[in-house]
Amino acid sequence: MGVRRTVLPGGLRVVTEHVPGVRSASVGVWVGVGSRDESASVAGAAHFLEHLLFKRTPTRTATDIAESVDAIGGELNAFTTKEYTCFYAHVLDEDLALAVDVVADVVLRGRCDTDDVELERGVVLEEIAMRDDDPEDLVADLLTTSLFGDHPLGRPVIGTDESIEAMTRNQIHSFHKRRYQPRRMVVAVAGNVDHDVVVELTRLAFADAITGPGADGVEPDRCRGGKARFTGRPQVLVRPHDGEQVHLSLGVRTLGRHDPGSRWALAVLNHAVGGGLSSRLFQEIRELRGLAYSVYSSVDTFADAGAFSVYAGCQPENVGEVAAQIRAVLEDVRENGLTEQECARSRGALRGGLVLGLEDSNSRMNRIGGSELNLGRHSSVAGSLDRIAAVTSEDVSAMAARLLAKPLGGVVLGPYEGVADLPSELRAMVS
Amino acid sequence: MGVRRTVLPGGLRVVTEHVPGVRSASVGVWVGVGSRDESASVAGAAHFLEHLLFKRTPTRTATDIAESVDAIGGELNAFTTKEYTCFYAHVLDEDLALAVDVVADVVLRGRCDTDDVELERGVVLEEIAMRDDDPEDLVADLLTTSLFGDHPLGRPVIGTDESIEAMTRNQIHSFHKRRYQPRRMVVAVAGNVDHDVVVELTRLAFADAITGPGADGVEPDRCRGGKARFTGRPQVLVRPHDGEQVHLSLGVRTLGRHDPGSRWALAVLNHAVGGGLSSRLFQEIRELRGLAYSVYSSVDTFADAGAFSVYAGCQPENVGEVAAQIRAVLEDVRENGLTEQECARSRGALRGGLVLGLEDSNSRMNRIGGSELNLGRHSSVAGSLDRIAAVTSEDVSAMAARLLAKPLGGVVLGPYEGVADLPSELRAMVS
Repeated sequence: MGVRRTVLPGGLRVVTEHVPGVRSASVGVWVGVGSRDESASVAGAAHFLEHLLFKRTPTRTATDIAESVDAIGGELNAFTTKEYTCFYAHVLDEDLALAVDVVADVVLRGRCDTDDVELERGVVLEEIAMRDDDPEDLVADLLTTSLFGDHPLGRPVIGTDESIEAMTRNQIHSFHKRRYQPRRMVVAVAGNVDHDVVVELTRLAFADAITGPGADGVEPDRCRGGKARFTGRPQVLVRPHDGEQVHLSLGVRTLGRHDPGSRWALAVLNHAVGGGLSSRLFQEIRELRGLAYSVYSSVDTFADAGAFSVYAGCQPENVGEVAAQIRAVLEDVRENGLTEQECARSRGALRGGLVLGLEDSNSRMNRIGGSELNLGRHSSVAGSLDRIAAVTSEDVSAMAARLLAKPLGGVVLGPYEGVADLPSELRAMVS
Repeated sequence: MGVRRTVLPGGLRVVTEHVPGVRSASVGVWVGVGSRDESASVAGAAHFLEHLLFKRTPTRTATDIAESVDAIGGELNAFTTKEYTCFYAHVLDEDLALAVDVVADVVLRGRCDTDDVELERGVVLEEIAMRDDDPEDLVADLLTTSLFGDHPLGRPVIGTDESIEAMTRNQIHSFHKRRYQPRRMVVAVAGNVDHDVVVELTRLAFADAITGPGADGVEPDRCRGGKARFTGRPQVLVRPHDGEQVHLSLGVRTLGRHDPGSRWALAVLNHAVGGGLSSRLFQEIRELRGLAYSVYSSVDTFADAGAFSVYAGCQPENVGEVAAQIRAVLEDVRENGLTEQECARSRGALRGGLVLGLEDSNSRMNRIGGSELNLGRHSSVAGSLDRIAAVTSEDVSAMAARLLAKPLGGVVLGPYEGVADLPSELRAMVS
């Protein structure tokens, strides 16, 4: 079985996977364009465009688009990241043709009319305001800024009030025309589907974009790669915040997704440090000391760089002790690595989680779409399970020693005006 | 195929469903005890207890519990509602026996030691603080207070700082001993499982609780029913809030889940008013006017009462217009009902969503566990699809006329000290 792949004219890739036992189909059009492709003056253009494309095509209004998928009980949505934008629909298998047609129409022919730009500008500004009112979301956005500074990876996907208010229809429209090329797109479909049928539906829905002179023989764009260069060290951002809790994140830069051998060692490290219920941070801070409800670590991976970070939210009187415990965990792991048992447990967790997380057609679609666009290859689930099993505690400890010796960046939202106001245990970590 | 059911001694119910094509099993122990069973002085006891049971059993520490499920890649968690508490594990099918054993151990033999109570008190207080910092969560909790007042349904599941700080080990322990009876429990398992195997595993894991004198022939508790009586009208709660957005919810009381014929008519009404992308509220407020990012309606259903409510978050300068649009939509729907097209689209959305939402073992487990505990019967998916298809636009319009003539309760978080400070369009709706 596995993943089947066809390259159509224009360099448009189609990947499909049949998922046994399901009655649904998940259709994604992945475009290899994200916020890192923007210049600073149009920060947020990729995400603004993603909103706007749903507003109007030559043959459908926003209402038509919403009604067409709503009427069949499907889900239609999109998301924008720093490196790509994904438009998707999740429908019953019998509605596959409609799903491919609507998603392609939006991606290729969304119009960016001036009136719609003005309306949607308000919606995006509200989305920024909502992010600002959600401290965990705000901290996550600011952490990438603290780590990557003025590199394009350091900018929030959503843009800023200023950039969104200033953005013109022509800037967004030309971003669409220049960037949304079939050779940068992947059509990924998973579920109760047949590859050849999907290819034909795609050929029809994308006909305008992939026929005509010069389309034949176009190669798909290569994956992003390289090694990001950052100016300066990670920063610590302290933002005054009037809430019940202090929200805190600390992190280091990591290598990108093409770094050989680092992906699963980093995943095992992350799970053991703060990814699971039995992780060091959860056990030390929540189970043994009751200092926080939410505490975890996470990994963000880009083509040429990444981040490993820790988050905790707690009331101001607990911040000092939480910071001291985070520091103790990170120092111990850096110096002494992880035990064989911890690594074995984390490998088990990742292996089980991988299998449990791939039962529905939507998660399969995300796996194959992301693999095609970002890696240019597909691993079988069995292959991924083998690679996880092959990670040794030496690999993980070496990764910990390397990463956790790097300078920390961080973000603190709380009753503080600057680094000087932070509790001493926290100040000691970041200065 | 379908749902299989066995009643064990002690009145312990076991329901299972085989899900074709999956490699996983989802195990839930549903206990018919929630925050509405608490007296006001121990508000939050059911949820505090749910936390505490994971801390220690006679044979496992919290670390053992976390490690046992983490090592196999499973998920182990629980949630507490106003009417029940559900402990669950999602694992690979080969780990079914471990999952049943761990979940039963926690539910039956979690110890509530004094030291653990003190530690976990801190965690629950942090969870309250986190809820307070999440305006959408806070509004949802306050809306039930605004509608149900000092009725037990009006209290937040999580309790208050005061009730959590005052709660003693003995109060929580006796809540456990008195309330957690096998006749109030349902073991629900879905996935790649066999009913007879599940029954035997349950019999073993629950042996202490369902053997002994008097256990044979015990009948399961009947479902909650009746009709709630509330004192006074719904209130409007205005809370000063320092954020970028104003967060607003308005709602009415509805009938409970046993009201014949109301469930799907209300679901269709909800979808058409604010449940989908093509709903009135989404179209009028976001698509046509760009006034909000997040705007929707929702339904909460309890045994003997319920709520239908609308939420919107927007910047202060948009609140007046958002309120005016909500009012216009609700008044129009009350007076003129919904069109046949809107009802047809909503029926389609609910039917498709039902099928798409039942592909994984976890959602199947939730469906059968909730049905057994709350309704005492099981509908096939085909039966539910038929009942949705049978809802007429007259049913929906009659429901709208009845519900939307009722007095509104509401919550506003924003730069206001009281009702007098609200924009006039909003004040007009709630006074």
